[in-house]
Amino acid sequence: MLSKNKIKLISSLSQKKFRDETGLFVAEGTKLVSDLSVAFPCELLLVTEARKNEFSSIQAIEMVEVTEQELAKVSAQKSPQGVLALFRKPIHVLNYADLANRLTLALDDVQDPGNLGTIIRIADWFGIQDILCSLHCADAFSTKTVQATMGALARVKVHPVDLPEFLHQVAGQLPVYGTFMDGEDIYESRLSPSGIIVMGNEGNGISVEIEELVTQKLLIPNFPKGQPTSESLNVGVATALVCAEFRRRQQ
Amino acid sequence: MLSKNKIKLISSLSQKKFRDETGLFVAEGTKLVSDLSVAFPCELLLVTEARKNEFSSIQAIEMVEVTEQELAKVSAQKSPQGVLALFRKPIHVLNYADLANRLTLALDDVQDPGNLGTIIRIADWFGIQDILCSLHCADAFSTKTVQATMGALARVKVHPVDLPEFLHQVAGQLPVYGTFMDGEDIYESRLSPSGIIVMGNEGNGISVEIEELVTQKLLIPNFPKGQPTSESLNVGVATALVCAEFRRRQQ
Repeated sequence: MLSKNKIKLISSLSQKKFRDETGLFVAEGTKLVSDLSVAFPCELLLVTEARKNEFSSIQAIEMVEVTEQELAKVSAQKSPQGVLALFRKPIHVLNYADLANRLTLALDDVQDPGNLGTIIRIADWFGIQDILCSLHCADAFSTKTVQATMGALARVKVHPVDLPEFLHQVAGQLPVYGTFMDGEDIYESRLSPSGIIVMGNEGNGISVEIEELVTQKLLIPNFPKGQPTSESLNVGVATALVCAEFRRRQQ
Repeated sequence: MLSKNKIKLISSLSQKKFRDETGLFVAEGTKLVSDLSVAFPCELLLVTEARKNEFSSIQAIEMVEVTEQELAKVSAQKSPQGVLALFRKPIHVLNYADLANRLTLALDDVQDPGNLGTIIRIADWFGIQDILCSLHCADAFSTKTVQATMGALARVKVHPVDLPEFLHQVAGQLPVYGTFMDGEDIYESRLSPSGIIVMGNEGNGISVEIEELVTQKLLIPNFPKGQPTSESLNVGVATALVCAEFRRRQQ
């Protein structure tokens, strides 16, 4: 039986304000809940009777058996999958020294929660451990983002930072890459195995303030190369293409 | 003033059945409507008074000036952008001879309309002119797909085909590529400048029936390469990575 207070708490977590206040976020679905339970403390686990044996290994502070109807009431999914969990948000410490020998992604106001989730998933695939998010990025712990990460959030650390300030601090120590229409063909560029890769906002690309801090401008060529195009790539797709090329050089 | 019949017609086009019956599809937004008007006959154009001068160059069979409220009633968008158009669906003829000298994408039951739209947009970026869709793929003319193509639908031809039958017909004439967990690293593979690239379903990948018709199995390596992973890439992202590598070799 799901209490009114729990329904209220879960519903409130659709808002960033309440996620920040409580330090909790929501995840749904078998694979996602299992993957995240390895990385984050589970404060509350709702399972239907039919599914409960599958989740007996998860150490939840509180477990509540719910009916399909109760679950549907608090679920953000069209077809709830029998399990919903509240996890405690991590507090990641950004260690500047660690970044010196790695590739790190930095997102300049990526606004769409689905795009952010896709980028977290891509980072995981390409072995990128940290993502720096400017302060106007979508929230990594919104329900849509969490679901879109498909569990990658358990392995990739997302750090909200004042991005211009951060880039000022690393200036001269690490190369800062960004994609631009007037950049150099990425396939013909020298790429370092460590540095910061900045990806821009969906509509406006990389902001002028951040552009000034980019040390190497890259271009993802279309085909046939150089054919004028007013088109652009989705930011998730562009992130994947850039990461793939950095990693191809390192294999 | 928008008649009840027109409201009914537009609403009905959210269903494939009625798009097929009428041969029409819906597009919304300034850039999308402008881009598509170059490629497809516009049967009906709804514009608000404030926006109507922007669209005076579009040769619509019928133009109706609507209020914001009327537009909101028929719009599928959260924030309608002042313009909605009904276009006539194209009838593309698939010329087998043309495919001999090109790269062509083939989608094996890609189900999500947003993914299909993203893939059409990626094809456009990489100069791929034709996409073959198996009969259980999402419909390229659904509102969600059309919006996700960002106008690329005007330049890329989508052909619904019986995919196993098609691949049987081209067997021995064209290489057929597909991505698999046990494929050969794409970055170390011989890639032809022409052929068919098959991308699989979101949950199940390429079906067994189609797998038998694939002549070269490719793998998109994660990083560090070979580290066991249960993860997969989104089909749109995977399509972009595969197309990028084929085109990089051709530049």
